[in-house]
Amino acid sequence: MASRLIAVVAGVGPGTGASVARKFAETYPVVLLARKPENFESLAKEINSKGGKAIGISADVSDLTSLKNAVDTIKKEFGDDVGAAAAIFNASGGFLRKPFLEVPPEVFQQSFAVSATGGVLFSQSFLPLLLNGVKQKSQHPPSLIFTGATASVKSNAQMASFATGKWALRALSQSLAREFGPQGVHVSHAIIDGVIDIEKTKGYNLPPEAKLSADGIANDYWWLHTQPTTNFTWEIDLRPAVEKW
Amino acid sequence: MASRLIAVVAGVGPGTGASVARKFAETYPVVLLARKPENFESLAKEINSKGGKAIGISADVSDLTSLKNAVDTIKKEFGDDVGAAAAIFNASGGFLRKPFLEVPPEVFQQSFAVSATGGVLFSQSFLPLLLNGVKQKSQHPPSLIFTGATASVKSNAQMASFATGKWALRALSQSLAREFGPQGVHVSHAIIDGVIDIEKTKGYNLPPEAKLSADGIANDYWWLHTQPTTNFTWEIDLRPAVEKW
Amino acid sequence: MASRLIAVVAGVGPGTGASVARKFAETYPVVLLARKPENFESLAKEINSKGGKAIGISADVSDLTSLKNAVDTIKKEFGDDVGAAAAIFNASGGFLRKPFLEVPPEVFQQSFAVSATGGVLFSQSFLPLLLNGVKQKSQHPPSLIFTGATASVKSNAQMASFATGKWALRALSQSLAREFGPQGVHVSHAIIDGVIDIEKTKGYNLPPEAKLSADGIANDYWWLHTQPTTNFTWEIDLRPAVEKW
Amino acid sequence: MASRLIAVVAGVGPGTGASVARKFAETYPVVLLARKPENFESLAKEINSKGGKAIGISADVSDLTSLKNAVDTIKKEFGDDVGAAAAIFNASGGFLRKPFLEVPPEVFQQSFAVSATGGVLFSQSFLPLLLNGVKQKSQHPPSLIFTGATASVKSNAQMASFATGKWALRALSQSLAREFGPQGVHVSHAIIDGVIDIEKTKGYNLPPEAKLSADGIANDYWWLHTQPTTNFTWEIDLRPAVEKW
Repeated sequence: MASRLIAVVAGVGPGTGASVARKFAETYPVVLLARKPENFESLAKEINSKGGKAIGISADVSDLTSLKNAVDTIKKEFGDDVGAAAAIFNASGGFLRKPFLEVPPEVFQQSFAVSATGGVLFSQSFLPLLLNGVKQKSQHPPSLIFTGATASVKSNAQMASFATGKWALRALSQSLAREFGPQGVHVSHAIIDGVIDIEKTKGYNLPPEAKLSADGIANDYWWLHTQPTTNFTWEIDLRPAVEKW
Repeated sequence: MASRLIAVVAGVGPGTGASVARKFAETYPVVLLARKPENFESLAKEINSKGGKAIGISADVSDLTSLKNAVDTIKKEFGDDVGAAAAIFNASGGFLRKPFLEVPPEVFQQSFAVSATGGVLFSQSFLPLLLNGVKQKSQHPPSLIFTGATASVKSNAQMASFATGKWALRALSQSLAREFGPQGVHVSHAIIDGVIDIEKTKGYNLPPEAKLSADGIANDYWWLHTQPTTNFTWEIDLRPAVEKW
Repeated sequence: MASRLIAVVAGVGPGTGASVARKFAETYPVVLLARKPENFESLAKEINSKGGKAIGISADVSDLTSLKNAVDTIKKEFGDDVGAAAAIFNASGGFLRKPFLEVPPEVFQQSFAVSATGGVLFSQSFLPLLLNGVKQKSQHPPSLIFTGATASVKSNAQMASFATGKWALRALSQSLAREFGPQGVHVSHAIIDGVIDIEKTKGYNLPPEAKLSADGIANDYWWLHTQPTTNFTWEIDLRPAVEKW
Repeated sequence: MASRLIAVVAGVGPGTGASVARKFAETYPVVLLARKPENFESLAKEINSKGGKAIGISADVSDLTSLKNAVDTIKKEFGDDVGAAAAIFNASGGFLRKPFLEVPPEVFQQSFAVSATGGVLFSQSFLPLLLNGVKQKSQHPPSLIFTGATASVKSNAQMASFATGKWALRALSQSLAREFGPQGVHVSHAIIDGVIDIEKTKGYNLPPEAKLSADGIANDYWWLHTQPTTNFTWEIDLRPAVEKW
């Protein structure tokens, strides 16, 4: 099969990841990565049925072998010289909002495994494809985008198991922006500062305007992706107009 | 004349301000504010000749009376109940890059007068029009956008006369974002981290890709303007991909 | 009179400024600057009666002439070649915590006049004496210390008239730290994040441990002053242990 | 043996850790933690021979069992109800300054294992002793101090394997400061922004005044330790006066 530029989205639950995948699928074949197939199956079907192209691959971003297998699968599907126009890291490790001394060390391990190690392994796996996208003169600069949170810049009491991983991920994105910007890859970090309007948050006692739109976030990621090499944004913050911050 | 939503741009020299005015003039009648008419005359002519609408008003943002006169002129032109869809503060005070003890206090005064006082007076003058734009249900949330610089977040040696004003302006924008977001006005701050590709910087010893595109900045401001109330960005940074930071 | 190294404290109301003056008076003759003599008279008397040396000078830090007169007075008292071991800027302009559109522009002017312009004029007036202190081989590196606040790093809704000046002052301190550190002057900025336990705050509904000790702040400034040139701190934050932040 | 308040120092190589241990040994029995006995043996001997008390324990901060054994050893030595006046985390994981795609994932793992996981496990191991120190009314508020670096706040190109762990550690310290400050434990983070003058850096092409003094850092940690509960500093930066930053 001839090489085509793809978009890869890691962490496609029923929220931001799905919206981002739909948005980028308007332009690129998308690869959906999630640990559990039920997290990408219906989304892949939906995109394919609407004339886009999507494949889902079971992958654990915290596991190098798993990611290597994913890249192998991608190359089988799209060719060995496949390039990427975008790689979006939307995964987050679990955490516990609890007094620090009551949080089992395993919880920190799991948080680091996804947010810190996962970010590193995902980047090492897909930067070669993004650099390949540069060589293949993608219309928009190939983009590596990381989803952050309020906890990426503020580490509150009882939130250490989340914030430590998120700060590490932000550090990764800043270092990569500095190293790979001059090579033509646009690395960005988005601070999502608020509750996203998804199935899981339906029951929250919040008016609709107090929640971030997942489709809106996807539009913002697309905007980052279309910035020219003269005007790269490393970081944006995003929050509802009514959010107190 | 019937009320229409306008866009106001302060600081329209031959760079970012002009690009921003052109971009917003595709959708709104634009008001160009500059101290010297030669800074807006040809731009207004250009916009008007291309089917847009632009008026230029001589105004000094550091002078309350001057801004009041500008608002009066705007109301005469667009009606007393005129609303604004956007107000963009792109002005910057002069400064001296010199050893601190060799910078005359007047230089600091002039820098504060525009960057700090000017930002305040401009905001107090046009927030009522922006709030009016909210009432008139503008398609996109009315936007108040401030142009910042590297010196808005880093205060280098010998740069105090620039950075003090720019930090004050950033503080203003953050406070206004928190106060007026819940009222429907989108307040943003853009950190322009690099040299902009304009007439003045033609002679700089820099390759083209090492300069920010002014039209690109205008696109980014437009993107900020079109964000929905669920997804407001307060701050973006912008720099060439090859910029060292 | 023979030249001696002095300490200058601007903004000596009945709180931090007085504590700082007492602390530095244990080692240096102190010069107390305040607009109103009643703000330094009893303090000067107290220091002099306890074996220290203090003189008070009426001065307005936002007025260059007033500061020049203060320096003249100091030279008459301590000699033309007087050096300073410390200069502490503890002044703050007035502000209004009110909706932005209800804050008169004059309030911003007054805030900038002290926090921004005052910081600049104070620094330009006393850096020559601090550099003289370097030449005269002061035991501890001559120190220029600025008092900041929560609002120096966070600009809340309705706090713009305070924060703009405080961010400008912080920018000043950072630029001066970079320029004058290599010349031997130690420039620092202290973020006082909480209510200080002074006469004015007696009535606040706060337990004693929820207020900062003014004498404690003075100790911290003294600690900054005694750091050797190999280990300069630019910025510290200070808050009660129980403070929520 | 009767319970006494101790100070624990993790990461006692021949630099900052040793200086900190010597400083705190002037007041407290100190426990020296390092993986390799050769890193604490001569230091323990030195402290004991000068009238202080020091014990060294081989411990790997990234290994929970190892730390549990260390705490057991401490309790055998100082009693089951032993309290701590200070716990200082001075350990740092290895890293590689190399293009990101050339850094083996194991290097990131090792960096996280010490800087992130190590910080967490050390804190979970010694916070109970610090809280015990609060109960036992230690003279100075029990202190938990973390050693950071330039890379704790800036993540440069090719430095991701260091910065990710250091940002995570800083996030940990901020969360713990917020949670344990109200419980009487003083949590601090020191940004060491420069080269420390130790054996390893003797050959660097830097004049003596361009290196941080390790003893100076120890003094600064002691100063943090002696701050009263009304005046806690979370973060200080430390650099040579001549450092460019």
